[in-house]
Amino acid sequence: MADTAVRPDKHTAPETEADARVDVAGLTPILLGTWGDIRLEAREMITDEAFWQIPGQSYHEHRERVLAQLKLLADRGAGARAFPKEYGGLETQGGNLAGFEELVLADPSLQIKSGVQWGLFASAIYQLGTKAHWDKWLRDAITLDLPGAFAMTETGHGSDVQSIATTATYDVETQEFVIHTPFRGAYKDYLGNAALHGRAATVFAQLITGGVNYGVHCFFVPIRDENGADLPGITSEDDGPKGGLNGIDNGRLAFDHVRVPRENLLNRYGDVAADGTYSSPIASPGRRFFTMLGALVQGRVSLDGAATWGAALSLKIAVTYANQRRQFDDGTGSETVLLDYGKHRRRLIPRIATAYAQTFSHDELLRKFDLVFSGENDTDESRQDLETLAAALKPLSTWNALDTIQEAREACGGQGFLAENRLVGLHQDLDVYATFEGDNNVLLQLVGKRLLGDFAKQFKGKDTRALAAYAARQGASKFFHGAGLRRLGQTVADLGSTARSVELGLRAEDQHQLLTDRVQQMVSDVGARLNAARKLPPAEAQEVFNDNQVELLEAARAHGELLQWEAFTDALSRIDDPGTRTVLTWVRDLFGLSLVERHLSWHLLNGRLSTQRAAAVTRYIDRLCNRLRPHAQDLVDAFGFAPEHVRAPIASGAERERQDDARAYLAGLRERGEAPTPEKKIRRS
Amino acid sequence: MADTAVRPDKHTAPETEADARVDVAGLTPILLGTWGDIRLEAREMITDEAFWQIPGQSYHEHRERVLAQLKLLADRGAGARAFPKEYGGLETQGGNLAGFEELVLADPSLQIKSGVQWGLFASAIYQLGTKAHWDKWLRDAITLDLPGAFAMTETGHGSDVQSIATTATYDVETQEFVIHTPFRGAYKDYLGNAALHGRAATVFAQLITGGVNYGVHCFFVPIRDENGADLPGITSEDDGPKGGLNGIDNGRLAFDHVRVPRENLLNRYGDVAADGTYSSPIASPGRRFFTMLGALVQGRVSLDGAATWGAALSLKIAVTYANQRRQFDDGTGSETVLLDYGKHRRRLIPRIATAYAQTFSHDELLRKFDLVFSGENDTDESRQDLETLAAALKPLSTWNALDTIQEAREACGGQGFLAENRLVGLHQDLDVYATFEGDNNVLLQLVGKRLLGDFAKQFKGKDTRALAAYAARQGASKFFHGAGLRRLGQTVADLGSTARSVELGLRAEDQHQLLTDRVQQMVSDVGARLNAARKLPPAEAQEVFNDNQVELLEAARAHGELLQWEAFTDALSRIDDPGTRTVLTWVRDLFGLSLVERHLSWHLLNGRLSTQRAAAVTRYIDRLCNRLRPHAQDLVDAFGFAPEHVRAPIASGAERERQDDARAYLAGLRERGEAPTPEKKIRRS
Repeated sequence: MADTAVRPDKHTAPETEADARVDVAGLTPILLGTWGDIRLEAREMITDEAFWQIPGQSYHEHRERVLAQLKLLADRGAGARAFPKEYGGLETQGGNLAGFEELVLADPSLQIKSGVQWGLFASAIYQLGTKAHWDKWLRDAITLDLPGAFAMTETGHGSDVQSIATTATYDVETQEFVIHTPFRGAYKDYLGNAALHGRAATVFAQLITGGVNYGVHCFFVPIRDENGADLPGITSEDDGPKGGLNGIDNGRLAFDHVRVPRENLLNRYGDVAADGTYSSPIASPGRRFFTMLGALVQGRVSLDGAATWGAALSLKIAVTYANQRRQFDDGTGSETVLLDYGKHRRRLIPRIATAYAQTFSHDELLRKFDLVFSGENDTDESRQDLETLAAALKPLSTWNALDTIQEAREACGGQGFLAENRLVGLHQDLDVYATFEGDNNVLLQLVGKRLLGDFAKQFKGKDTRALAAYAARQGASKFFHGAGLRRLGQTVADLGSTARSVELGLRAEDQHQLLTDRVQQMVSDVGARLNAARKLPPAEAQEVFNDNQVELLEAARAHGELLQWEAFTDALSRIDDPGTRTVLTWVRDLFGLSLVERHLSWHLLNGRLSTQRAAAVTRYIDRLCNRLRPHAQDLVDAFGFAPEHVRAPIASGAERERQDDARAYLAGLRERGEAPTPEKKIRRS
Repeated sequence: MADTAVRPDKHTAPETEADARVDVAGLTPILLGTWGDIRLEAREMITDEAFWQIPGQSYHEHRERVLAQLKLLADRGAGARAFPKEYGGLETQGGNLAGFEELVLADPSLQIKSGVQWGLFASAIYQLGTKAHWDKWLRDAITLDLPGAFAMTETGHGSDVQSIATTATYDVETQEFVIHTPFRGAYKDYLGNAALHGRAATVFAQLITGGVNYGVHCFFVPIRDENGADLPGITSEDDGPKGGLNGIDNGRLAFDHVRVPRENLLNRYGDVAADGTYSSPIASPGRRFFTMLGALVQGRVSLDGAATWGAALSLKIAVTYANQRRQFDDGTGSETVLLDYGKHRRRLIPRIATAYAQTFSHDELLRKFDLVFSGENDTDESRQDLETLAAALKPLSTWNALDTIQEAREACGGQGFLAENRLVGLHQDLDVYATFEGDNNVLLQLVGKRLLGDFAKQFKGKDTRALAAYAARQGASKFFHGAGLRRLGQTVADLGSTARSVELGLRAEDQHQLLTDRVQQMVSDVGARLNAARKLPPAEAQEVFNDNQVELLEAARAHGELLQWEAFTDALSRIDDPGTRTVLTWVRDLFGLSLVERHLSWHLLNGRLSTQRAAAVTRYIDRLCNRLRPHAQDLVDAFGFAPEHVRAPIASGAERERQDDARAYLAGLRERGEAPTPEKKIRRS
């Protein structure tokens, strides 16, 4: 084939593992994933410094800058990708999110402000509204002629959207909805575009008609006039400076009996006729609510991607610096490069492995999202799976971003604290990713409940005796694992094993088994305990739940980790270059074993690992870190960031120059005989 | 006694443990510690809003504000406390630091800028200089008529001060030192007061005279004229915006053959005569260097205190909010208070325990500091102990502050991200505490090396056979612990134990034993391995060191944790009120067991805990969290912060008001029969 003929053959299998090298240029497209072309396009666009964050700007200046950037984006059509062609769109769902995620490299405020305008405000119109709404508002929302706020969260209700207190009461006389904020805690809060730039809002409120509350629905409500003044009945407040994302004008909105036409109800999932009769294609109020919320899952999906790139960027900066910076004499008269220190390897290299795992699991999430939202596989079940997957992955990646960026910042010392080197800004901006678009713990609880539901299905139709027998069996099996034969057998096997077979005892299948067993065991443990409490009065049942909440969240996290591991392992099979595959297999092992090490006491207490094998985990991780050390730069280079995306002076080669200058100067002194004699030497003589 | 007669008797022993209550007002002075009076005085001063940080200021405005605050402090004599009465001082060492630490509540920038001016710049003049220097500069440094920078760190050398590259070469002709920056990496960097406000600097440089380098010494160097312009030969640069502490004008200084009189050498530990002859009261260059650096240990000491108060403040905010904020229906129709959730208890209450432990260990550190610097117990050994203690505690408390503040911020959700609620600002400002005044990992390594030194002393004079025998014994003992009899015995005992005796099996003595054994075992493990590598060539020995570095740092951390635990336990004996002592004993147990839980896999792998007992650790922690839940507010109130110190609107009672309003509104609707019917109910009927 012509293709093979012109390509240089990089794909020769390495002679030995020690020869394995990463094909950096070949790996980048694999990391960029399914919508790599759109990612590259976005990255190309933001090489323009007009899109870059300027450290040290006041929040007033920063907000204006990001608004101007948003207009640039709109001019380039970036806001249209997800929407129908009729409204100027490209109808690409996964690609749309992929493109937005990359904006985190320019300025996370821009990423999130785009998300507010197009991922939330315009999407609410599109996903929750119908054609009349689209015709009326969608084009202007896409072009930013109509900047909008997404008014869901209230001061008194964040992740518990179902309990929001804003009301939309239908007035059959005037055929209007009356939007009202009944008390201070019901102010809409933390809304991007609410403090300054929004002209309208998609407002979530309890729909009341004929004295009945039909639950949360979404309404289109104009909030400001052409001059930016609040419309009658609207109060807006500024949330003021925040911990980060200060390019966004977050604020509060309150409504004092604000009237909107009946047609402003975004009525895809529920409608009110002129006479006040309510109707909905979804009979169950609960399912209707979750369907509406599920239509907006893209926020969570895109945070998973953006957080992953944020972590990757911080690793690119810290690893590059750690490969150039020297500190402390190594005993040979030369100073040691930071990444040659055992501690430095251990603090950075396993985090590269996590970033890799997340890159792969995010692409899977994005593909699932695309299948559902393109309509290709849009069933109740696939929507639920998508929501569970997003709820499992977003907490892990956003927390991991904070952890990784902080470690990267500390690994760069004082340089890491300068705003110009970006790590502190990334941490500040991504901080809130852990609690918005669903608080991480609340999301993990959703996942946990789903896992419990799957667990309970095993017993459907069985009587209580079967349940009791199951619980007893669980106890027995736990005791068996915890103190008995299985461990003993493993111990015996380990005693006779060579170093190599200990490694084999931690190979992919074993990692998979350990990660899978942990999820299953934790879910069944919690499930059995909660099941036993089913018949208690609510307050007592709640207390039993509380006593198990930590473990349930931990089970959900374990589930997310397993999904990441599986995505990484699946991705290995898609890598053709043998050297790259060898190195990435080590990276995957490092990821898997780091997970096992993090929960090592669980595996020991539950008899899943003998002490010998458990001790081998840490040793093997150390060995993998050493083995990967020469590949660390390749691995972060493969993220494919251009200098315009990195921008941190310490990762620009300036540190290498400084080190080279210093070494040349000292060498020059020695050559010219001008180096002063160390005091120690004259004392000896 | 009159005293007993007028005091209300709060000190009756509680009838049962369930009756135990914290005497909040009585506990506060115990937490404030030895210099509580000075702390209270400082806290009283900063109730004045002139000292408060204003969120959202530009870094330019913030720098000017903090400079003005520093002048206010100087006017009130705060800069003088540590210095001799002759120069307007109070000669209180511990009290001086205690007073400065409290400034973190007003604005961490103010705390650190004070530290730069008086704790570093003026202290260098005082601790490293002699009377002529004091007479010349000390008064003006104290009054802030002479603002100064402390020019130690270089771009190319942070924690490795011994290798800095700035030179001070004695010119016998002119009797001057020539201060010079030989290359870019030798720029002095990250210096407070260097970008704008400093008029002089205490500059650390390699002292060269007669062609010999006598190592790092400190020189007084004027840097700016009265109008703030750089003096000839001086280049200053601005470090620009940072991740936090933006009230401080950090910057860089470079010297192009800048000449200062011979007398500007701060000559307490080393001097150069007019003819160029070097002399020092300390013959060993190494010991001389560490003595000079040790004279400036107060920076580390005060960071330990400030970080502890920062963490405490964040807990005060988050616990207060968690006791007022409600979220999600609890199944009884009412919404649950956050702190009633199992996860919320687990994320906040153990962190209160850590803050308590640190409060006590910090007071011990401060007392040791006072004994040394007051001259009461100033020996080589006591100085070394002080430095080791500071190096062990500062990393733990500064990292803990970041962890606790971040958890507090997330526990407050979106509110936690607003700058007005202070958590994000505290995290940003305290971030750099982990890497300045000695990078945390570098400090832990110092501690680790000291521990290894103590370990090696056991073998002093013994031959290599003794060492080999020891190493073999260690191996045997590890195997014994890891797989054998000791664990078996414990298992048997545990099987027969009741829940209560399992608790007893984790009582104070057991906690102490576990924590102590861990330090000893880790140090001897690492020590034996490093000892075996003694005779290897430098590069190979360095590799062995690197392979053990992570464990050495972990051993140092374990040592610091043990010290904190011991300080907490000692403090319990000083508490008279029985209710307070009961509750604080639970808090201490929670602290101790949280440490054991964090390292649970180590205890299991090293045979220090049976699986049964290890499993009991987590259960007991859960029980302690539940038991302490009703005391959580008392425990954070006992930190003694006034509203002017807290200042976060969410911890002001505003949230309780909002919740009460909401509940009153909904109750009113129900009473008046105006509450809409939930859709579910009409469907059922």
